[in-house]
Amino acid sequence: MVEFSNKMVIVVRWDLRLSAGKMAAQVAHAAVNCALAAKKRTPDWFDRWYSEGQRKVVVKVPNLEDLYEVKSNAEALRLVTSLITDAGMTEIPPNTVTCLGIGPGPQEVVDKVTGHLKLV
Amino acid sequence: MVEFSNKMVIVVRWDLRLSAGKMAAQVAHAAVNCALAAKKRTPDWFDRWYSEGQRKVVVKVPNLEDLYEVKSNAEALRLVTSLITDAGMTEIPPNTVTCLGIGPGPQEVVDKVTGHLKLV
Repeated sequence: MVEFSNKMVIVVRWDLRLSAGKMAAQVAHAAVNCALAAKKRTPDWFDRWYSEGQRKVVVKVPNLEDLYEVKSNAEALRLVTSLITDAGMTEIPPNTVTCLGIGPGPQEVVDKVTGHLKLV
Repeated sequence: MVEFSNKMVIVVRWDLRLSAGKMAAQVAHAAVNCALAAKKRTPDWFDRWYSEGQRKVVVKVPNLEDLYEVKSNAEALRLVTSLITDAGMTEIPPNTVTCLGIGPGPQEVVDKVTGHLKLV
């Protein structure tokens, strides 16, 4: 059993009712952005997270306001964040904010901002 | 309208009937692995893909055999691939292969191996 000490969390706007495929692509976009940014900005956290097998957790918020609140809380703790805006060529209007990637960072830090959110 | 010339494709095993959240996390895992690997191994393709906004497409195969076939076809064209195996602590048995990331690479190259697969 691997003990995870670091994680990345991706927070999805649940009010958009994205299809499973669309949601997966948006979450992947956030994860790639966060991984690349964390590798530069918080390399220790990135390395630990990567060597532990890159734990990722997908959670949801009911609306855009809640997503922005989570974003500012995460930034206040100096966690990497990446807000994803979809080009909107398919399911949703152009420039719709769909999800937010946070971290990776130590579990206890990340939990302070996402611990109350429900898993998708 | 952005014209995409490069893309990453993530191929999901549809027989596992993953939940939307589980699928998103597995797809994100493949996308992060492929992005990091492509940045090193095929930096020109990575840079073009990244500067175009990182197009990602999620498609499906009916079973593990088909996933492995797509993987060898992709490797024959020198595309980066990343096969994702889940630790299986929740929905599925440990060490289950869940999905395969391919690329990023030029659209016409990637389409040779995934062009026949249905979108999720």
